[in-house]
Amino acid sequence: MKSEILAGIHPVQEAVRADRREIREIMVAAGKTGRRLAQIEQRARKARIRVTRASPEALSAITGDLRHQGIAASVGPLPLCELQDVMASTGEARAPFLLLLDQVLDPHNLGALIRTALCAGVGGIICPRDRAAAPSPAVSRISAGAMEHARMVIVTNLVATIKALQAERFWVAGMDVAGDQSLFKADFTGPLAIAVGGEEKGLRPLVKKHCDYLVSIPQVSALNSLNASVAGAVAMYEAFRQRQLNRRKEA
Amino acid sequence: MKSEILAGIHPVQEAVRADRREIREIMVAAGKTGRRLAQIEQRARKARIRVTRASPEALSAITGDLRHQGIAASVGPLPLCELQDVMASTGEARAPFLLLLDQVLDPHNLGALIRTALCAGVGGIICPRDRAAAPSPAVSRISAGAMEHARMVIVTNLVATIKALQAERFWVAGMDVAGDQSLFKADFTGPLAIAVGGEEKGLRPLVKKHCDYLVSIPQVSALNSLNASVAGAVAMYEAFRQRQLNRRKEA
Repeated sequence: MKSEILAGIHPVQEAVRADRREIREIMVAAGKTGRRLAQIEQRARKARIRVTRASPEALSAITGDLRHQGIAASVGPLPLCELQDVMASTGEARAPFLLLLDQVLDPHNLGALIRTALCAGVGGIICPRDRAAAPSPAVSRISAGAMEHARMVIVTNLVATIKALQAERFWVAGMDVAGDQSLFKADFTGPLAIAVGGEEKGLRPLVKKHCDYLVSIPQVSALNSLNASVAGAVAMYEAFRQRQLNRRKEA
Repeated sequence: MKSEILAGIHPVQEAVRADRREIREIMVAAGKTGRRLAQIEQRARKARIRVTRASPEALSAITGDLRHQGIAASVGPLPLCELQDVMASTGEARAPFLLLLDQVLDPHNLGALIRTALCAGVGGIICPRDRAAAPSPAVSRISAGAMEHARMVIVTNLVATIKALQAERFWVAGMDVAGDQSLFKADFTGPLAIAVGGEEKGLRPLVKKHCDYLVSIPQVSALNSLNASVAGAVAMYEAFRQRQLNRRKEA
């Protein structure tokens, strides 16, 4: 089975903690010490994962462009989830809450969105297979290891996915600068999927057309717009806020 | 006077639009065309700014690490603001709204925070002179040119600044993962300065001590935390939301 190389403290630490993908070997740079490295080693040994020493040069050769911070791991692929599984996941928020990404190409944006999604209680992140950044070791690094815990779903047809979600009574809200509903007036309390588009063009027209409604983030300045990962974060946290409020009301 | 080199479409375009710093010359890559380049050229000529052609290689040599996208400009320093000026700026939100940055070292985070601040109606961004990313051409690039419009204040002593703000009846809210006030319960409607700390350690203890209160962003997962620029964005937009709501109530 295909091997991947995770590099850096956070991705390796979170892969061990999450205990989701096969960890074949953890390599620590010879002579490198530190509290966090020691913690990872200890935990890995407890889980009977092989820990070896490598020269910093050998580690750099294996990890390539990724900064390794003295640690890397040879791992199996990240287990992906099925749409059916994440649709049923209610998580903390009671009503299910998903994130749909359309053509997010920049691994930095994908990593940042995954990191925020995990904090905001998103139960699944759905990405198209084509024309999109993949959940790679680089993305795990950018997400500060959050990707190791995230429930990722890869789909071939985003429009078909939206229809499947709607058939299960999800509301699909598309983030769009020209959206006619203000973020702060949208109702995000029910079963929800927030769709966020790529860095250049936002959501594709066909995806927009199938959303239940289009939501824009109010902006004081017309000169500028928000970065895709920031727009996603503001939307996810508005959903989080409304759901928290709603739960207090129900209680 | 010191020259700086702005590189890329957004920074040059927004510097021309903002009309705040001296633009000595705009250099366009020979043979490079496009709608947005033509718009910038047209606007620059109207403003009697010298536009010259340079070889792509010469442009790369001038702009160094920054991707120039076929355009660069030789400019004077970004005009900075005084604390007194931004304290009085009410902007769209009626009550003044400022951002205080403590030891944000990563230009990517500074650029992202400036970009979001402009969208969220922040009237001034206050940064310490030392141990902080400076408002450089690289930051302007990362902010998608938003920095050209932002009111930036550089101070030598952040604690003295906090005291000066409090003397003018500002509430200073520090963002802190261990803060005892939840973001969604904080009152952000009055004269407000939100303090955001650097990527590694957050706000310094002395800065925290002088904040009126410390605010944390609720998180479902304890495993992970938000990136500094995302935490800042979520806080700024919560303030934006409350202020918009407040204005509607008053109206």
